[in-house]
Amino acid sequence: MNYPTGTKVSFNKNTTYGNRGMTLESDLNETNNYYLINNIAVIYKKPTPITIVDVDYKNRSDAIIKKAYFKTPSTTDYNGIYKGKYIDFEAKETTSKTSFPLNNIHQHQIEHLKKVYEHGGISFLIIRFTKLNSTYFLSYNNLESFIKDNNKKSIPLEYFKKHGKEIIDKYMPRVDYLSIIDNTFKGDVL
Amino acid sequence: MNYPTGTKVSFNKNTTYGNRGMTLESDLNETNNYYLINNIAVIYKKPTPITIVDVDYKNRSDAIIKKAYFKTPSTTDYNGIYKGKYIDFEAKETTSKTSFPLNNIHQHQIEHLKKVYEHGGISFLIIRFTKLNSTYFLSYNNLESFIKDNNKKSIPLEYFKKHGKEIIDKYMPRVDYLSIIDNTFKGDVL
Repeated sequence: MNYPTGTKVSFNKNTTYGNRGMTLESDLNETNNYYLINNIAVIYKKPTPITIVDVDYKNRSDAIIKKAYFKTPSTTDYNGIYKGKYIDFEAKETTSKTSFPLNNIHQHQIEHLKKVYEHGGISFLIIRFTKLNSTYFLSYNNLESFIKDNNKKSIPLEYFKKHGKEIIDKYMPRVDYLSIIDNTFKGDVL
Repeated sequence: MNYPTGTKVSFNKNTTYGNRGMTLESDLNETNNYYLINNIAVIYKKPTPITIVDVDYKNRSDAIIKKAYFKTPSTTDYNGIYKGKYIDFEAKETTSKTSFPLNNIHQHQIEHLKKVYEHGGISFLIIRFTKLNSTYFLSYNNLESFIKDNNKKSIPLEYFKKHGKEIIDKYMPRVDYLSIIDNTFKGDVL
């Protein structure tokens, strides 16, 4: 990201953006906006959690935050509603061509996905292998199976191919993960 | 709030805290935490949305935000899942003893509550009259009826008494709004 001051910053040191034009985050923002304006679903990315230390406060509209820190998120980045169901997911990019390193996701984010699943929501990961130009949907169910059965620190690409679903890039919406949910959960929870 | 620097700031100029020990926000945080640890529901307050202008960036764990602004929120402050249903609400305090001023809630927040309702979620307001020590639950349905039928800029306390439900303070959980949802939506959506 290029901020007005010219400072180059990246908020997630574990992701590096590939040579595609768009990041997964901006693709998902466009996708969620498409779902919203077409009245398909109401799903948003949550704001980045921060701890504010110092504010120059006149009134709310012109308050300036002078000092703040990034906080470790307690939950995932995305949630909302689709066909009456609660939707919750985390989305990450990796530059690896062979596996997704699990340390890209905080332990309490995995616990959050588990809780959502247990309360009857639809929780999952969206993982993009930037150098392969491929993006996968992995349900919490399959994430849990992997963690239980394996002592590995990364989920191999093969596992996504076998137990996940590839989300094929489209023009609109770009990352149509709800079509995967339609196929995966049809007749079950949907 | 008293920040380490001693700067006194308030992030919502429309609310003034009454002489109770606790604000509605901290009561709701405790309540949601109670629901979470007792495995009743998974409901969180979203982080405050900000626009970051300048970051002193070494790596994520010690990045310092040097300049940022508050953004107008697109959605409500609270959402999550309860009994498989998507829950979404906005919570506000007022010092008025007679009515709740509607300009405390942004128009797009009301539209967001409407969308959630139309997609099958449970959306509502929690309004505390701090000087009366009373807190009300008002479903989106009843909020919409009020807005349609009235050309007023405030919802009178009487409307909350007639069409809302009072949430009686408890020791634990403090603001038990899910018990209201149980009674209101039993046999319907729950």
